[in-house]
Amino acid sequence: MIVPLRWRGEFLEILDQRLLPETVTWISCRDHWEVARAIEELAVRGAPAIGLAAAYGVVLGVRQDVPLETVTNRLARTRPTAVNLTWALARMESAGVAFRQEGDSWKERLEVVAQGLESEDRAINQALGAWGATLLPEEGMVLTHCNAGALATGGHGTALGVLRSARDRGKRLRIFADETRPVLQGARLTAWELTEEGMDVTVICDGMASTLMAQYPVAAVIVGADRVAANGDVANKIGTYGLAVAASYHNVPFYVAAPRSTLDPRTPSGAHIPIEIRSEEEIRCCGGSRVVPAGAKVWNPAFDVTPAALVSALITEVGVFRPPLAGTVAAALAMPFDI
Amino acid sequence: MIVPLRWRGEFLEILDQRLLPETVTWISCRDHWEVARAIEELAVRGAPAIGLAAAYGVVLGVRQDVPLETVTNRLARTRPTAVNLTWALARMESAGVAFRQEGDSWKERLEVVAQGLESEDRAINQALGAWGATLLPEEGMVLTHCNAGALATGGHGTALGVLRSARDRGKRLRIFADETRPVLQGARLTAWELTEEGMDVTVICDGMASTLMAQYPVAAVIVGADRVAANGDVANKIGTYGLAVAASYHNVPFYVAAPRSTLDPRTPSGAHIPIEIRSEEEIRCCGGSRVVPAGAKVWNPAFDVTPAALVSALITEVGVFRPPLAGTVAAALAMPFDI
Repeated sequence: MIVPLRWRGEFLEILDQRLLPETVTWISCRDHWEVARAIEELAVRGAPAIGLAAAYGVVLGVRQDVPLETVTNRLARTRPTAVNLTWALARMESAGVAFRQEGDSWKERLEVVAQGLESEDRAINQALGAWGATLLPEEGMVLTHCNAGALATGGHGTALGVLRSARDRGKRLRIFADETRPVLQGARLTAWELTEEGMDVTVICDGMASTLMAQYPVAAVIVGADRVAANGDVANKIGTYGLAVAASYHNVPFYVAAPRSTLDPRTPSGAHIPIEIRSEEEIRCCGGSRVVPAGAKVWNPAFDVTPAALVSALITEVGVFRPPLAGTVAAALAMPFDI
Repeated sequence: MIVPLRWRGEFLEILDQRLLPETVTWISCRDHWEVARAIEELAVRGAPAIGLAAAYGVVLGVRQDVPLETVTNRLARTRPTAVNLTWALARMESAGVAFRQEGDSWKERLEVVAQGLESEDRAINQALGAWGATLLPEEGMVLTHCNAGALATGGHGTALGVLRSARDRGKRLRIFADETRPVLQGARLTAWELTEEGMDVTVICDGMASTLMAQYPVAAVIVGADRVAANGDVANKIGTYGLAVAASYHNVPFYVAAPRSTLDPRTPSGAHIPIEIRSEEEIRCCGGSRVVPAGAKVWNPAFDVTPAALVSALITEVGVFRPPLAGTVAAALAMPFDI
């Protein structure tokens, strides 16, 4: 099974996703600073995966006698958009505070919580995948953006988890992956994940998605999410919103697959989601070559917001939610989920 | 003045656009095979510019006593989508056939025809730019795709010619350039051209265009064209169609700037325009790095078709045409143009 993280008891191994698909290299992180840097520099990315990496980072940090709140503050500062990071750190911090009052073994007990979050995430993705698979045809073309796969989660994936679950149920899908500039997570990560498992995947440039929909019967667009606001607006990798507009224009269903750790009832709408602006170098430099002249400016928002009105369905581990999505976030969070 | 071609009497110098913006290197082509290869390999690109390069290629080819029709056939096979290539070769071939019957100096006279096409193209772009500038506000943001600039023409440019003409008339524009995957003509060429002249340009990834339009008051999207069918459908660089869909969704005017050599009355609609499928390597390999795993497929159409219904205006050297565009191509071709 493809996973982005391997907890080794004394340290956390992070699959360096910047080097895929050419090289499979694991980075060993022995403290929370190294974990924070790996998140900031995109060695590990994907909303659920950075939440899990941060959870293990908390375990490593408190073991070195760094105050719990100092550790969680450092890890929380790594990336602003994905709410799963906040969610995982809040779970770790409240557990840590409670355990600390109960005795000396609190650091060992925190390790169990982090491991629990990871295995819970896999179970959630399996459930989410099963729900989502019901939306896909027995045979057809599906388009995805960025990487909402095993590499972005504890395993199995969200959007790609749905495709895996559909495949496991015998559905014959032809998957198209936007390459997803500037970091090319679609070309490098989604294509790698799916080809490793023998799935049928074709990479296209982001600007080809509309033409694909105009020329071929695309059954669905399916993406992950970094944060879903209370009104159903979805923050996800830059390019998602344009894809949603194109899907709407071509009457192609636009599905968002996200575990409930991505739902943020405290953020009223997409306008309130902080959007990370990343380094200009991600665009100025392409595969080692400088492609933008020095005199030109660059704008590099890492995420965009798709209004709830463009989302055909929100797929979670507790079921599929159809529009209108206002109220869905609160309802989904109130539902029971048994692993 | 930025130009993509320099005719040196004995040979044609082609600015190697593959090496911009890092290096300004000129390739010397001494026969029509070298010109053909430079077109195929994108050292020179842009519909009007490849037409002009091919015209000089004809001059070089017949000087070496290669039959006129053999030369034009070789050059015509280089790229299928831009009709300007066919148009320029037809002009050269009919002139050559006529001159040949009239005497020995026919090869010298062909050289004059090629030079005439080049200076005519610059004059056309100036006229086109003047018409187009009337569509733009005194101050505002404009988004463009690929490179429809001086580098894509004999000089001045089509879409970028409109922006230059607007600047010359005192309009203060903030230009956004899609980087334009896979070959990055927007990042590499448009940004270079505009910064060389001190214009205000910001490069974005193709997937950011919709977000730009959602967040900021974009006054217009303006692009060039490789072929305009009789019904007004527009073939242009891949990504253009998605941009037109996004512009329509955000109520942003979508302008196509094209000289009449781009209009093709013999092609009834976009469905009949041959779309070049280019090498997978353009996507698999990004700036020297391999980014797509070997097991994944790749789809690389170099152009797409924007239906006439999404075009707010067609800007030519004889005026601005508004929808419905059916009939416009024939009407525009029937109008007089005096340089």
